[in-house]
Amino acid sequence: MEEKDISRAVIKRLPRYYRYLGELMEDGVERISSNELSGRMKVTASQIRQDLNNFGGFGQQGYGYNVKYLHSEIAKILGLDRTHTMIILGVGNLGQALANYTQFERQGFKLIGLFDVNPVLKGVSVRGIEVRMIDELPEFIRTHHVEIATLTLPKAKAIEMAKVLVDNGVRAIWNFAHTDLNLSVPPDVIVENVHLSESLMRLSYNLSRYDKDHTEPKKK
Amino acid sequence: MEEKDISRAVIKRLPRYYRYLGELMEDGVERISSNELSGRMKVTASQIRQDLNNFGGFGQQGYGYNVKYLHSEIAKILGLDRTHTMIILGVGNLGQALANYTQFERQGFKLIGLFDVNPVLKGVSVRGIEVRMIDELPEFIRTHHVEIATLTLPKAKAIEMAKVLVDNGVRAIWNFAHTDLNLSVPPDVIVENVHLSESLMRLSYNLSRYDKDHTEPKKK
Repeated sequence: MEEKDISRAVIKRLPRYYRYLGELMEDGVERISSNELSGRMKVTASQIRQDLNNFGGFGQQGYGYNVKYLHSEIAKILGLDRTHTMIILGVGNLGQALANYTQFERQGFKLIGLFDVNPVLKGVSVRGIEVRMIDELPEFIRTHHVEIATLTLPKAKAIEMAKVLVDNGVRAIWNFAHTDLNLSVPPDVIVENVHLSESLMRLSYNLSRYDKDHTEPKKK
Repeated sequence: MEEKDISRAVIKRLPRYYRYLGELMEDGVERISSNELSGRMKVTASQIRQDLNNFGGFGQQGYGYNVKYLHSEIAKILGLDRTHTMIILGVGNLGQALANYTQFERQGFKLIGLFDVNPVLKGVSVRGIEVRMIDELPEFIRTHHVEIATLTLPKAKAIEMAKVLVDNGVRAIWNFAHTDLNLSVPPDVIVENVHLSESLMRLSYNLSRYDKDHTEPKKK
């Protein structure tokens, strides 16, 4: 399949299509029109058609989309048709929560290592994976194929460990530290930042707007 | 201050400005030009000027922005100049991780309640807050002012509890369940969804693109 350069906005929506199509499959739905999918996702039908056209369509006039086929094609586009090995650095509550999400494993993200600096955690197991001390990390990366490193570390430590990871050949970082880690690593390293506090601030912003709309006298 | 309708894209960037300005304050920087901020944030200077103009500017020609003033003005816009009360439903690893983020509290999000269905957790305390059973929730909301409910629950339970929350007057939900909860509640309820698996899929997408670019023969 010939891929065009796909906009960030479309890529951002793809996992959502994937999730909705997965739900349709669970419900036993075999095909769906862009109009029905539109009603379900609250995205316009024309937006859906336009988005899916980026990947050569998949739809047939008067028939709609084959749910299973579209689901598997989007899986391929998202790289979910193969296994990705992952390690987690930082085995606090958040690190453990991520380690315990069996859903990630079902989507092909295979957890192969856990690392922390806290000696109390040494040898503790999460889902059968033993916590290693972080000084074992370079050796581990050299002897295992590590594709994704998840960082649930304080900011300064995350920046420091990102350097170790990159120097040892890890190319993708899933970052939960309170910093834009992509600015701290070479441009060819893939970084996905999850900024939970920014999400909470957007919520707070919307709450403030709501309060204003409901307490201030309306202007004409 | 007169506020225009502000685009979602700008709102999305505001927490990032807030974070960078906070770092500048920690570094003792008192003023900064849009060019310097641009270099730091990897956003164009004209984008920065345009974004901040949405809020009436704050900048002065030839002087730049007063860091502390701009930080506090953005705090006001984001509703961070006052306290928001918050409860967490679901005290597993993720719920506990969120409960333990003291940073949220520093930003004005005050945790006042923890709820779970698991009787083993009854009476257990996280940061001095006792875990209550979820059947106590309606009574708790009636006797406490709860602004934000954080849901770290399985999807079906999250949808069920969202109804209970909304029926009892909670207006803002921070949702970590694998569903677009805004489609399950009335439109005036504020929902901020955090879809961790979608973030991981974007990472996977970028990894696949990278692999393709580096293994397939380049076309002219």
